[in-house]
Amino acid sequence: MTNPKGPMTEAVNLKSKFGLFSDHWAPRVIAQMNDYQFKLVRLQGEFIWHEHSHTDETFLVIEGSMGIEFTNRVVKLEEGEMVVVRCGEAHRPFAEHECQVMIIEPVGVVNTGEAGGELTAEGDVWI
Amino acid sequence: MTNPKGPMTEAVNLKSKFGLFSDHWAPRVIAQMNDYQFKLVRLQGEFIWHEHSHTDETFLVIEGSMGIEFTNRVVKLEEGEMVVVRCGEAHRPFAEHECQVMIIEPVGVVNTGEAGGELTAEGDVWI
Repeated sequence: MTNPKGPMTEAVNLKSKFGLFSDHWAPRVIAQMNDYQFKLVRLQGEFIWHEHSHTDETFLVIEGSMGIEFTNRVVKLEEGEMVVVRCGEAHRPFAEHECQVMIIEPVGVVNTGEAGGELTAEGDVWI
Repeated sequence: MTNPKGPMTEAVNLKSKFGLFSDHWAPRVIAQMNDYQFKLVRLQGEFIWHEHSHTDETFLVIEGSMGIEFTNRVVKLEEGEMVVVRCGEAHRPFAEHECQVMIIEPVGVVNTGEAGGELTAEGDVWI
């Protein structure tokens, strides 16, 4: 990998990057645009309820299907579909079968938001 | 379309949105995350050399293939590949055959950057 934050950017292949890890709920950073990061994550099962107090967050499904439970609705996402979760809105991602997802959000966002807990992943892990 | 900037976000299907327009080099906004927008655009042929003085810009190929010429290299992108163009770096997108692309960048970025000209598209056009 060349310096991902450096001036000489290069093409990033999402499928190739997914091939570099297999664990669930542990986002890897693949690119940075200004102070936003593109992260890949494999989801399976149910995450915890949480919210991000200071930012929106975007989910784009690369392969598989997933859902996000909100307090007043459920948004289901198939491959090639995305949703923006609004700042402060409590949500719980889930995926019956393993799903490959790209998350876009500002640098420093913690996956479990304000909730914390054992599913909290290390941040800024590049692949 | 529900209010795209409102609190009740919903799933956005990229292919369905691409079905709503057919012209080239005219980005349509499909979602907003904080002060960043997700735009879909169909590319065919060669764009103009330009740069964005105040922001990075991300290209993600949804279908087809494209390239971006820089002054010192060419980055080629296939389906499922992305690149971040750094703030201030002169670039020229091109696509031999029509290519469907998602662009992610801050609200207000003009497609032709500092260069302007007849290919300058209207901004903030939602579908």
